[in-house]
Parts: sequence; C-alpha cells; structure tokens
Amino acid sequence: MVTKIDHIGIAVANLDEALKFYEEVLGIKCVDTEVVEEQKVKTAFLPIGDTEVELLESTDKEGPIAKFIEKRGEGIQHIAYRVENIEKALEEVKAKGIRLIDEKPRKGAGGAKIAFLHPKSTFGVLIELCER
Amino acid sequence: MVTKIDHIGIAVANLDEALKFYEEVLGIKCVDTEVVEEQKVKTAFLPIGDTEVELLESTDKEGPIAKFIEKRGEGIQHIAYRVENIEKALEEVKAKGIRLIDEKPRKGAGGAKIAFLHPKSTFGVLIELCER
Repeated sequence: MVTKIDHIGIAVANLDEALKFYEEVLGIKCVDTEVVEEQKVKTAFLPIGDTEVELLESTDKEGPIAKFIEKRGEGIQHIAYRVENIEKALEEVKAKGIRLIDEKPRKGAGGAKIAFLHPKSTFGVLIELCER
Repeated sequence: MVTKIDHIGIAVANLDEALKFYEEVLGIKCVDTEVVEEQKVKTAFLPIGDTEVELLESTDKEGPIAKFIEKRGEGIQHIAYRVENIEKALEEVKAKGIRLIDEKPRKGAGGAKIAFLHPKSTFGVLIELCER
C-alpha cells in the first residue's frame, strides 16, 4: 500500500541550532522551510536519497510538537509513508482494524494531504500517510 | 558526509505481531531476519524505496532494545545513515565536537560496520553511522 518513506519528522526545540548539526556535521542540506499553521510548526526540509528529514519546531506552546518535547524530549516524532490515494488508504487501514487519529486527510507541509494513524495500533510509532 | 538513510530501527516487543502490521496493513515485505548476538536483538529487514525499516526485538532482558522499551515503550529507536568510510566519518564527527557512543565501529546486522553517536549531541536522536 505504501510506496516509500516520504519523510521522517524530528521534533527540535530550536530549528537553527539543529540545522547546524544536520548541515555542518551530517552534510544534509536544507532546501526550504515552511510554517504550517494548521500543525503549529515551522518545518525545514532536508532531502536525502529518495526521502527527506523534516525538522519540526513548534510555533506555539500548545502545539503538538511543543507537547511532544515537553513529554519525551527532542527526538524522532513520526514516520510518513507515501501513498497514491490517501482516502482509499485510510479506508483500507480502517477496515483492517487500525485506529485513526485523522478520519479525513488534513493539509500538511508542501501542500500534501496527510493523516495520522494512532500509535496504539501501530506498535508505538506515530505513522503519517501522505499523498503528494 | 552521509549518503542516504540506511535504515530506521524500530523497537518492538513481539516481532511476529509487528510484522503482521507492516506486511498486511502497510504492505512492506520482510525479506530476511537475523539474530545479532552483539546487539542482543532479532532483526527483521523490510526494504522500502532506497532505505529499509528494521524491526528489532530483544533477545535478552538486559539488551538495549529491552531497556529502551522498558523506559519509553515500543517505537522508533534510531536512524542509521550510510557513510562510505566509517573510521573517517567518526574522526570527522568527533573533530566537530560530537559525543560518540562508539569510538570504534562494531559489527551490525548484515555484516555492516556500525557506530552510534550520542543523542545528547544530536538533538535527541540516536544516530547510527553505517558502512556496508
């Protein structure tokens, strides 16, 4: 059903400091940044191979990334898998008994259509499905 | 310095149950499993795009995966980045002030040479460097 790993979402407290590490130590370059109001994040996009690292800094103390960091500290927050048809994918996943966070797709970074599955159904991993 | 994401390591309590989700719901197929004595894990390899999901079940209550699950629950444990020369990469990373868990490479799954960077230096992410 999924075709590739679209991106890996990493929660960071300070985007500029984290970018220095990714660019200057690992050598992965940031190609763009974007504020996604709906998710209350500022995102930096760092393509690598056929996938991408996305660094996520919260723009709001009540946003999901701020809450994640408060609870667990900085770190990997989610894995996004690319799908061709997100509405169909959500139907299929639901029919197989997987709990959804989003019953319908929302707007993600880069104009993508995204939806999250519930970590209780996915062995502790917050999984995003993503159509571009 | 890094050339691609070699794999994403995911800690699971029960490999067979987790595999059902990855294979039957997400449709990512397991191509092999391997017990890595040195890491005290049984690993399942699930290639996707130019990278791979690795599911990790502990073979020992004192192993790093068992301890990870005890502390944080199941979930994403590390990201491995491919490098061409791991000794050189470790030298470079160390010279840039990054703290290492492994000063010298160890043996990983699939005969790879691997070494971990310390999450305190990498914004909360356990990063593995991996030469194949």
